[in-house]
Amino acid sequence: MTTATALTGVIPPVCTPLTPDFEVDTGSLVRLVDHLLAGGVDGLFVLGSTSEVAFLPDAHRRVVLDTVVGHVAGQVPVLAGAIDMTTLRVLDHALTAVRAGVDGLVATAPFYTRTHPAEIELHFRTLAERTGIPLYAYDLPVSVHSKLPGDLLLALAADGVLAGLKDSSGDDAALRRLLLDRPEGFAVFTGSEITVDSALWMGADGVVPGLGNVDPHGYARLYRAARDGDWVAARREQERLVRLFDLVAVGRSRMGHGSSALGAFKAALYLLGVIAHPTTAVPQIPLDESEIAAVGTYLAAADLR
Amino acid sequence: MTTATALTGVIPPVCTPLTPDFEVDTGSLVRLVDHLLAGGVDGLFVLGSTSEVAFLPDAHRRVVLDTVVGHVAGQVPVLAGAIDMTTLRVLDHALTAVRAGVDGLVATAPFYTRTHPAEIELHFRTLAERTGIPLYAYDLPVSVHSKLPGDLLLALAADGVLAGLKDSSGDDAALRRLLLDRPEGFAVFTGSEITVDSALWMGADGVVPGLGNVDPHGYARLYRAARDGDWVAARREQERLVRLFDLVAVGRSRMGHGSSALGAFKAALYLLGVIAHPTTAVPQIPLDESEIAAVGTYLAAADLR
Amino acid sequence: MTTATALTGVIPPVCTPLTPDFEVDTGSLVRLVDHLLAGGVDGLFVLGSTSEVAFLPDAHRRVVLDTVVGHVAGQVPVLAGAIDMTTLRVLDHALTAVRAGVDGLVATAPFYTRTHPAEIELHFRTLAERTGIPLYAYDLPVSVHSKLPGDLLLALAADGVLAGLKDSSGDDAALRRLLLDRPEGFAVFTGSEITVDSALWMGADGVVPGLGNVDPHGYARLYRAARDGDWVAARREQERLVRLFDLVAVGRSRMGHGSSALGAFKAALYLLGVIAHPTTAVPQIPLDESEIAAVGTYLAAADLR
Amino acid sequence: MTTATALTGVIPPVCTPLTPDFEVDTGSLVRLVDHLLAGGVDGLFVLGSTSEVAFLPDAHRRVVLDTVVGHVAGQVPVLAGAIDMTTLRVLDHALTAVRAGVDGLVATAPFYTRTHPAEIELHFRTLAERTGIPLYAYDLPVSVHSKLPGDLLLALAADGVLAGLKDSSGDDAALRRLLLDRPEGFAVFTGSEITVDSALWMGADGVVPGLGNVDPHGYARLYRAARDGDWVAARREQERLVRLFDLVAVGRSRMGHGSSALGAFKAALYLLGVIAHPTTAVPQIPLDESEIAAVGTYLAAADLR
Repeated sequence: MTTATALTGVIPPVCTPLTPDFEVDTGSLVRLVDHLLAGGVDGLFVLGSTSEVAFLPDAHRRVVLDTVVGHVAGQVPVLAGAIDMTTLRVLDHALTAVRAGVDGLVATAPFYTRTHPAEIELHFRTLAERTGIPLYAYDLPVSVHSKLPGDLLLALAADGVLAGLKDSSGDDAALRRLLLDRPEGFAVFTGSEITVDSALWMGADGVVPGLGNVDPHGYARLYRAARDGDWVAARREQERLVRLFDLVAVGRSRMGHGSSALGAFKAALYLLGVIAHPTTAVPQIPLDESEIAAVGTYLAAADLR
Repeated sequence: MTTATALTGVIPPVCTPLTPDFEVDTGSLVRLVDHLLAGGVDGLFVLGSTSEVAFLPDAHRRVVLDTVVGHVAGQVPVLAGAIDMTTLRVLDHALTAVRAGVDGLVATAPFYTRTHPAEIELHFRTLAERTGIPLYAYDLPVSVHSKLPGDLLLALAADGVLAGLKDSSGDDAALRRLLLDRPEGFAVFTGSEITVDSALWMGADGVVPGLGNVDPHGYARLYRAARDGDWVAARREQERLVRLFDLVAVGRSRMGHGSSALGAFKAALYLLGVIAHPTTAVPQIPLDESEIAAVGTYLAAADLR
Repeated sequence: MTTATALTGVIPPVCTPLTPDFEVDTGSLVRLVDHLLAGGVDGLFVLGSTSEVAFLPDAHRRVVLDTVVGHVAGQVPVLAGAIDMTTLRVLDHALTAVRAGVDGLVATAPFYTRTHPAEIELHFRTLAERTGIPLYAYDLPVSVHSKLPGDLLLALAADGVLAGLKDSSGDDAALRRLLLDRPEGFAVFTGSEITVDSALWMGADGVVPGLGNVDPHGYARLYRAARDGDWVAARREQERLVRLFDLVAVGRSRMGHGSSALGAFKAALYLLGVIAHPTTAVPQIPLDESEIAAVGTYLAAADLR
Repeated sequence: MTTATALTGVIPPVCTPLTPDFEVDTGSLVRLVDHLLAGGVDGLFVLGSTSEVAFLPDAHRRVVLDTVVGHVAGQVPVLAGAIDMTTLRVLDHALTAVRAGVDGLVATAPFYTRTHPAEIELHFRTLAERTGIPLYAYDLPVSVHSKLPGDLLLALAADGVLAGLKDSSGDDAALRRLLLDRPEGFAVFTGSEITVDSALWMGADGVVPGLGNVDPHGYARLYRAARDGDWVAARREQERLVRLFDLVAVGRSRMGHGSSALGAFKAALYLLGVIAHPTTAVPQIPLDESEIAAVGTYLAAADLR
């Protein structure tokens, strides 16, 4: 079995396809998983922000876990987000995911509450003690409204509380600093779609790219090139993906930034024939037909259609 | 029966007493409800921020709903917070509360996601359509990280989507503006403990004071005095409560602001003999013995012990 | 002579009329001062935010000081903003204002830099030591990006460093708390145009209303009514002014909030015949003709035209 | 003569040495310039944030300009910050710098005011029109509290309004995106001390490192290695500088982050014998003796002593 502590490479946060009445579209979800595996990814991250986890009721979350873990059947490690406001609520999600058979858990600091670093520490320690599988910290200030302090991450890494970090803070200076001092075996992934080559150059172990739903082959090529030391090829691939990533802004003028990005990923998967509906969860504003068509022009420009 | 739309007066957000192992202490909860009713409150708000709703797993939330609705048995209206990240998750909580028999629901804008005002509007419209009981908007930027726009609130009030507002934004200028133009029957409550007399002066219908757990009589006196036009008495009572409210800062230097306030309310209720344990939910840092004693000095200064 | 330490009442921040080529229009400035004095104000505050101080080069600032101090000639106290990033730069402005003969100085905490409370304290102590006239702290988090801590204000008040506070933080709960404990002789003014009656009710000594440029009589009536204990009349006047204050939003959709408010005040003064041009300083977007006309409708609705 | 538009390489923001009574220590300033030139830097940036420009009165700023421009005498280009709140005030500083003979100007968006992007655009256009020498935008959200939009920068670059950008936003994803589409001749510099190799890898033209005051040779080696394609050597140098950069945190627990960093740079220069006093401008808390000694341990670890 693949152990989560050895995780490296491309681990996309898997979109959650929905039917027009907002149920999980399991047929599309299975096709999406196959699309990603065929793309050469090294693991899957379900119930992350790109999976619309914040929009999914518990029943939907369970369907996602069962569908993906069942379909993957050990081919690659599956990580699951346990995303909720504070420790006991996160624990409920985490234990459900453990029972479903995931290989690792991903959790943020508490949010909604105003939390002291000592409370963030207790939060992660409690989660690790009660779950027993690898725990990854998820640094996402745009949602959580605090940044995980580097010294806290290092302390929790040294104690074996955390197996790694998904860094979606956009603070590549802090990432650089952390990478220099992290202990052996503490895996660090960037969540930024467009600075992957530089994050790998600094020593990161891999990437969790939302855009990887749309172009898993691209991220797999980028990662392989970097791993093999062909940084020029990695940069060329990255620059193509930077331009492709512009699709997240198609709807931005009339909806939230999140809706615009998630809507664009799903529109792309719909246009590529991977999922049956471009539906995003309420209350997100959906992309309209002309916006979906505009997403298509980005796919064409990136040679994906 | 009291209809929620006619709500006025003092409606404290009910603390959730916990046992030392973090279960709901229903005996203490019943005593706390009796303490509040004896204090002359006009309604109860369960599962709000002061209730540590962000820390309570679903099972705990259900125990709270059943315990309080059952014990109150219609003596006063009971509102319930349906606090979660986005619409479908909020709906799950809301429908549970409806089934438990509450008289009204309280919900924030979406959080964790970056949400456009049009999406906030759809959020509240969807909640109102699917629940069928009075819905109150909860404006709490310190947790939700956006402020509910006044024009959106007025539009939703005019359409009957919202029955009222709990304003914990601390923005009394915006509150003032809203109060001038709100339609008949749209109830506005301040969530600020220490500007109640002025909010009532501006036309607010009542208050949802966390500190009302500790001193319900005080808030009831304040409200009655204002209602009866004795503003000088209202101010005198308010100023006493302003000083009492300083207890929220006792632990502030070594924990989150939320933990410090919630810990102080519970310490006070514990010292007053209302609840059996001052326990707050993980991962909040608990007040230590000297801090609990310091809370006691505030009670004494306010003539509560 | 009126001493600045005895300040109470209405002290409008005086707009700075400009010619179309962005010079100080001293003729209009003198007319504006006369308009304010005729309106019954108790003092004048030049070079505040509403005076576009952030936009005025030093030479313009000196023209404003000399024009207003000279024209007022001791009829009412004149306070001057000394608005700049840090201590030595503020001192240069402050000493210029002292030489011009102002009665008091108004200064914010340092901005642009990231400043520790101990540094804010040293800032105000240094300013007070080197200027020798009453110093007022200006709490304006929307510009300065920090809030002046209440305990620091009280410590500086107790030591005689600060003569008072202009509170434009919008945090009326913090204002309430401060008012309860401030020492004798420490003057507190609210900078909020639309919660003046409630601030006075809480004990504030007066108001520094930008809108007072447009309707000084209104604010003077409001203040006199409150001082005389006729709170109902004060509220009626305040509510009229609340509606008038909506003019600040006329241009908001296509410019900064500041430009929209300052442009509206100047448009109103232009329509009222007080100043010759509605010009605001670069790089602010000016109101266009239809927006200026819209400002006029607010004046009419408030019975000012 | 070197034209500013061809700027590349290492352009440190020059610290401003002060005497114990807060005057510019011109002798130390000249020694610092020589230290930097001997270190192999490609240009100098005076009156930037690291130069404590926010703390320097106009007279101090003029002394710095005259001292540095006079001493450098054309050996390398000298850029000058024109740092103030809005356009006309910035213009005063800019014209003073032009008269002093600098080769380029550096300006931020307006701050203190709440500014619309259209106003930021007008700000830079006005500055460029009236100064006539190359103008660089300075993106520093930590001080200015807004981020320069990428599309605005590209539009101003295309029109020749801006000659380049100093990016101190810490947002390397936005930097990456900009670098892909910038027009020929638009120079982009990172202001981050610890992601220089990756910024150069993405295509940046150089770096403006505060830490370059302390170790100009290190940054020069880093830049030369990257320019010559020896990225492994560049990374090795960068990683040494990452560890050295930790000196900025020595005083952080008891002062502002800015004071801690500026105090550490000056303490290092003092320990290295370059400047006569480690004095920082009021109201910054100075490092104490033990903190200065701690800075020395970082110098030793980096083989600088």
